[in-house]
Amino acid sequence: MPWFRNFIHLSTAITRKQPPRKSPAIIAPPPPSLTLILQHFSTDARYNHNNPGLGPTKGDEKPRVVVLGTGWAGCRLMKDIDNKQYDVVCVSPRNHMVFTPLLASTCVGTLEFRSVAEPIGRIQPAISREPGSYFFLANCTGVDFKNHEIHCQTVTEGVDSLDPWNFKVSYDKLVIASGAQASTFGIKGALEHATFLREVHHAQEIRRKLLLNLMLSDVPGITDEEKRRLLHCVVVGGGPTGVEFSGELSDFIRKDVHQRYAHVKDYIHVTLVEANEILSSFDDRLRKYAIRQLTKIDLIFDTLVSQSGVHFVRGIVKDVKHDKIILSDDTHIPYGVLVWSTGVGPSPFVNALEVPKAPGGRIGIDEWLRIPAVQDVFAIGDCSGFLESTGKPVLPALAQVAERQGKYLAKLLNNLGKAGGGHADAAADIDFGNPFVYKHLGSMATIGRYKALVDLRQSKEGKGLSMAGFASWFIWRSAYLTRVISWRNRFYVAINWLTTFVFGRDISRI
Amino acid sequence: MPWFRNFIHLSTAITRKQPPRKSPAIIAPPPPSLTLILQHFSTDARYNHNNPGLGPTKGDEKPRVVVLGTGWAGCRLMKDIDNKQYDVVCVSPRNHMVFTPLLASTCVGTLEFRSVAEPIGRIQPAISREPGSYFFLANCTGVDFKNHEIHCQTVTEGVDSLDPWNFKVSYDKLVIASGAQASTFGIKGALEHATFLREVHHAQEIRRKLLLNLMLSDVPGITDEEKRRLLHCVVVGGGPTGVEFSGELSDFIRKDVHQRYAHVKDYIHVTLVEANEILSSFDDRLRKYAIRQLTKIDLIFDTLVSQSGVHFVRGIVKDVKHDKIILSDDTHIPYGVLVWSTGVGPSPFVNALEVPKAPGGRIGIDEWLRIPAVQDVFAIGDCSGFLESTGKPVLPALAQVAERQGKYLAKLLNNLGKAGGGHADAAADIDFGNPFVYKHLGSMATIGRYKALVDLRQSKEGKGLSMAGFASWFIWRSAYLTRVISWRNRFYVAINWLTTFVFGRDISRI
Repeated sequence: MPWFRNFIHLSTAITRKQPPRKSPAIIAPPPPSLTLILQHFSTDARYNHNNPGLGPTKGDEKPRVVVLGTGWAGCRLMKDIDNKQYDVVCVSPRNHMVFTPLLASTCVGTLEFRSVAEPIGRIQPAISREPGSYFFLANCTGVDFKNHEIHCQTVTEGVDSLDPWNFKVSYDKLVIASGAQASTFGIKGALEHATFLREVHHAQEIRRKLLLNLMLSDVPGITDEEKRRLLHCVVVGGGPTGVEFSGELSDFIRKDVHQRYAHVKDYIHVTLVEANEILSSFDDRLRKYAIRQLTKIDLIFDTLVSQSGVHFVRGIVKDVKHDKIILSDDTHIPYGVLVWSTGVGPSPFVNALEVPKAPGGRIGIDEWLRIPAVQDVFAIGDCSGFLESTGKPVLPALAQVAERQGKYLAKLLNNLGKAGGGHADAAADIDFGNPFVYKHLGSMATIGRYKALVDLRQSKEGKGLSMAGFASWFIWRSAYLTRVISWRNRFYVAINWLTTFVFGRDISRI
Repeated sequence: MPWFRNFIHLSTAITRKQPPRKSPAIIAPPPPSLTLILQHFSTDARYNHNNPGLGPTKGDEKPRVVVLGTGWAGCRLMKDIDNKQYDVVCVSPRNHMVFTPLLASTCVGTLEFRSVAEPIGRIQPAISREPGSYFFLANCTGVDFKNHEIHCQTVTEGVDSLDPWNFKVSYDKLVIASGAQASTFGIKGALEHATFLREVHHAQEIRRKLLLNLMLSDVPGITDEEKRRLLHCVVVGGGPTGVEFSGELSDFIRKDVHQRYAHVKDYIHVTLVEANEILSSFDDRLRKYAIRQLTKIDLIFDTLVSQSGVHFVRGIVKDVKHDKIILSDDTHIPYGVLVWSTGVGPSPFVNALEVPKAPGGRIGIDEWLRIPAVQDVFAIGDCSGFLESTGKPVLPALAQVAERQGKYLAKLLNNLGKAGGGHADAAADIDFGNPFVYKHLGSMATIGRYKALVDLRQSKEGKGLSMAGFASWFIWRSAYLTRVISWRNRFYVAINWLTTFVFGRDISRI
């Protein structure tokens, strides 16, 4: 535990102001000479290009589980896997998991970015320490199912001296949890000009852009017209992400922009564009409540004090330009910040995998989350879906589905390992246990103004509790606070909420 | 106060679950139609190019103080200026002040970036609210002393749809506090390949690069040689910034890298390159103590447990390549992260100003911090220095000098305003009071391992208290904690220190 080591260090620092000179074990040796420093850098070879990678494990070694991806599915699996039975190798282009339900709050500073990012080493400490467990910052470029190995390429963005290189990793069990990617339905310009809301860097980009536009709008020489455009935040997609982001934005406008950007407060607006109903998976009553709350305009004694309400526009986007979107009825909507959250589709990696697919282009899996055609390969989370032959519907791309699958699969793999089926091709005769069954626990969404929706019905037609308002908001906050994985981040989320309440949101553009 | 407004909002949210339908003042109106939304965007003009800006103030208006820069000098001035007497207009390319003494701690995650950034609106709230006070995100491109106006250009980086534009601001009093810039002494390649440590984005860049290199070093296919290079952190410049950063780095290595990057922990090293003595402004005894502490290697029962000591190299850098620095004696030192902190020099803006200069190319000022040749213009902080004719030495480029000058000048301007000399050309016959006198309060530097140096002598030859060790470290932390400007950041700095102690540093690369 770091705190314990720190405590020891600190005690030492307090009790021993000057190191006792007589003990040779703790006297500082003289600084090493330059020759000593430079002797490390003796050869000239850069990379070892002779087929680098991790070869197959031997029979007396721990079997190796390779996990692709660091989303809900992969991280839950890594958290629960027994590292006494398996070595864990994780391959992903990011070294942390994003606590996606709270990501929208970071765009306006209600929460800080680091409070919603959980490093993999904190989720599965073996990866940082154990000799056979690793985290590789890389993309998987292909899978050789026959030889039980994956092909990868490192992610080296931004470092001028290092080109990406390829390597291979042999697996005993492979878990594909690489997720889906934001879908733009092929709409021209969306990819170039809109920002998604799936990664921390997306939230950072939105926050920087919003603050920049707020400041630029205050500089002399800008027309009213252009000011309105810069401060028009348009959200495309009325699912929970889009609605929660709109709610956060209008909280930010009502509470912070009015206080900190008083000169331009009347120019800022939020518009949500959706082709169908917003929050279509929620109870009708809740949806109406959400619309009423989001569109609310603050009046005191009949005077408009805040234009913070969200405007809803029913429409289909057909084109995205750098400063406006164009709807299918030819309406032009100028924007300064454009956030896109219309759902997800399969990634190019999944498209390229030569395995039978489930409806929607996802990797087809059976009831035990296996890819049936090949040995020792599983797929979980948004990248996978039940094959039509299973007779089960493809599950929605939700965090709770992914997390439940990760949990189930960790247990399955732990059982396989105990039964001696951990190594490659060793599980053929072992019972895989009960198949995976998904039970929907319900949905939640916050809509700003200390209000939220909680829908505990198991399906849209099912019966069960559904509620909205402050109590729901309190449930929403408490539920997510307990779901945050590490104690460190749980503490920071609580502290962020507290300081936002007391001091307002931070507006430094860093 | 935001917390009070939030409290009111929250109480309302608790007591009023559903808005009472009968009061027309708080019922939500129907969402406005698309036409209503779009009516804002009716003309096509982009900017008002007809000489935009703020014209001269009239006699019955508040006089306008224009402040260039948001460093220690400008921010202290804005904090203390009486906004009942003056309108304040601040022009700067960043909207926050950086608490520079704690910036080194953010590179390795001991503190978070936002904890050391203070938005201007929190330092001088009038800027966000008062009708005549503004913050402009812009660079000053020139000063027209004769016409009492400055020429500016907006900062619009990253927004694809907005080109920078020019505008003018008339001033009654102008305070130039634009600071200095990092100096590379013309060494080839330093500007391209090294990272400075003056802004939050520098610290972000160092942190991202360090974490990337730690992860890449663990990927198969990299040679030992290259791994050692990637994980070699070289700091050029042995002043307080360079030493504090080295100390933070070796704390990070000893406590976090050993825990979180156990596979590569033996490859990481820190080297500090300095042409003369490190910490030359400090007492000799303290300097020796610092060197002893920084080079210390942890041994337990004669076994090396940590290679965290800093190597010192005495040398002059003559060339910087993308992967190594070359010293004047032709030694090549490969690096993965290069941080440059060899001091500061005048910025191009200061070089271009046609006013008499002080030694070192700074803007020449008299004892009242005025530029003598022109009316109503002052210069404070690192950009200014006493003219030789004053008989006073140029003060060092330190936060405490800048802050003291800002404080002095705010008082001077407040007095001028009270005496009716606030407007342009109105102060000629007014007494400016006592000249500015600087009294050095001493220096502090932390060196890692819960140790710091505190040197309270007024000059290098003077007498006074100087101490080093844990007590000094405690003084160092307490002193800076009380100097942090806002309560919000004071709270966050304390919380960051606490969580670093308990949980270790955060290693998500976001």
